[in-house]
Amino acid sequence: MAEVKLFGSWGSPFSRRIEVALKLKGVEYEFIEEDIYNKKSPLLLKYNPVHKKVPVLLHNGKPICESLVILEYIDETWEGPSILPKDPYERAMARFWVKFLDEKCFPAMWQACWSIGEEQEKAKEEATEFLKILEGTLSGKKFFGGDSIGMVDIVANFIAYWFMILQELAGFELLTKEKFPKLNEWMNEYLNCSIIKENLPLKDKLTAVFQARFQAVAAAAAAAAAK
Amino acid sequence: MAEVKLFGSWGSPFSRRIEVALKLKGVEYEFIEEDIYNKKSPLLLKYNPVHKKVPVLLHNGKPICESLVILEYIDETWEGPSILPKDPYERAMARFWVKFLDEKCFPAMWQACWSIGEEQEKAKEEATEFLKILEGTLSGKKFFGGDSIGMVDIVANFIAYWFMILQELAGFELLTKEKFPKLNEWMNEYLNCSIIKENLPLKDKLTAVFQARFQAVAAAAAAAAAK
Repeated sequence: MAEVKLFGSWGSPFSRRIEVALKLKGVEYEFIEEDIYNKKSPLLLKYNPVHKKVPVLLHNGKPICESLVILEYIDETWEGPSILPKDPYERAMARFWVKFLDEKCFPAMWQACWSIGEEQEKAKEEATEFLKILEGTLSGKKFFGGDSIGMVDIVANFIAYWFMILQELAGFELLTKEKFPKLNEWMNEYLNCSIIKENLPLKDKLTAVFQARFQAVAAAAAAAAAK
Repeated sequence: MAEVKLFGSWGSPFSRRIEVALKLKGVEYEFIEEDIYNKKSPLLLKYNPVHKKVPVLLHNGKPICESLVILEYIDETWEGPSILPKDPYERAMARFWVKFLDEKCFPAMWQACWSIGEEQEKAKEEATEFLKILEGTLSGKKFFGGDSIGMVDIVANFIAYWFMILQELAGFELLTKEKFPKLNEWMNEYLNCSIIKENLPLKDKLTAVFQARFQAVAAAAAAAAAK
């Protein structure tokens, strides 16, 4: 039995965070693809009975859930490049920003892509406000982690890849080079790192999945309006 | 200037978490009371421009925000009793449960107290489900942290004190000894620890604040219904 198993989903940015971290540390692992939309496996439900979600890391038979918790565990368990800085204050800053990304930025950005009308405009405004704050933290830095990729960069993967595909499908352009020059520079640097590039879902495959969901949402909205 | 300052609010469970942790570590600090409802101080807005909330810990002039981030910082910065366990897997478990408390339990419990009718029933059901999960983790343990108070206990302060006052004011009894014997045993042990007992807001004072808010909410609901 492999010492390290990852229950994940190819298209999930949360799952990809863990793959990047494991590869950064040089940890060999077995990847178990979960069908998160149609049928979750009995093992996933056994290992993550509270949230029933990917990713789940299984290390020596013991499960760890929640991507931010897993990232800290990986950093504390394996040698190799640090995911969090060593200095306690810098660590606190990194933890602050990943919390901000997960709790503020991503919900607003996601909402901006999947809503319409007034609700969408509000979400776009909110997302813009949060992204401006984020833009400010990149001043003078190549990565959020400084000269190399750290926890904030790994967690911000959604911005660099998933969101860029989504906003195009949703028909708006929020993260422009004019408004967010630093974030755009970061995206270029980030997506060109081999460890990141090699751990992204195929663009066409991800686009197809999102496109199908956009059509389903639009059909449901049209059906509701016709009632 | 004091090396450690805490911008907090006497009635906030988030702010109290930090006080408990500092006292557990034996760290001297200056407490700065913030008027969070009426007028936040320019210093609070300067030190926490993103969320504009308490608690903020200021250490040697550098601010740290977000109570969970501050707790980890305190544990990494000062000697003394550990807030998180030493073992990486145990640390991951503690981090998992504090996330569960903040993101699942407390929002449902809070909602159960401040809503009415169908919405309240739904929130009560949800809170019950989450608390049952929590009850299960206490099996065979005095504290969430084992034999001594740890991060999960510190974070769970809301359950032991604030919620018990709130549910009484809201006129229901969710956390009964019959349904949650382990959580009730934990509460007794917990509230009798001197470090906890000495760091709780006065019951009468907290009750008066909540009572005034309950009346304001009821008045607003009555005014809306009369329209």
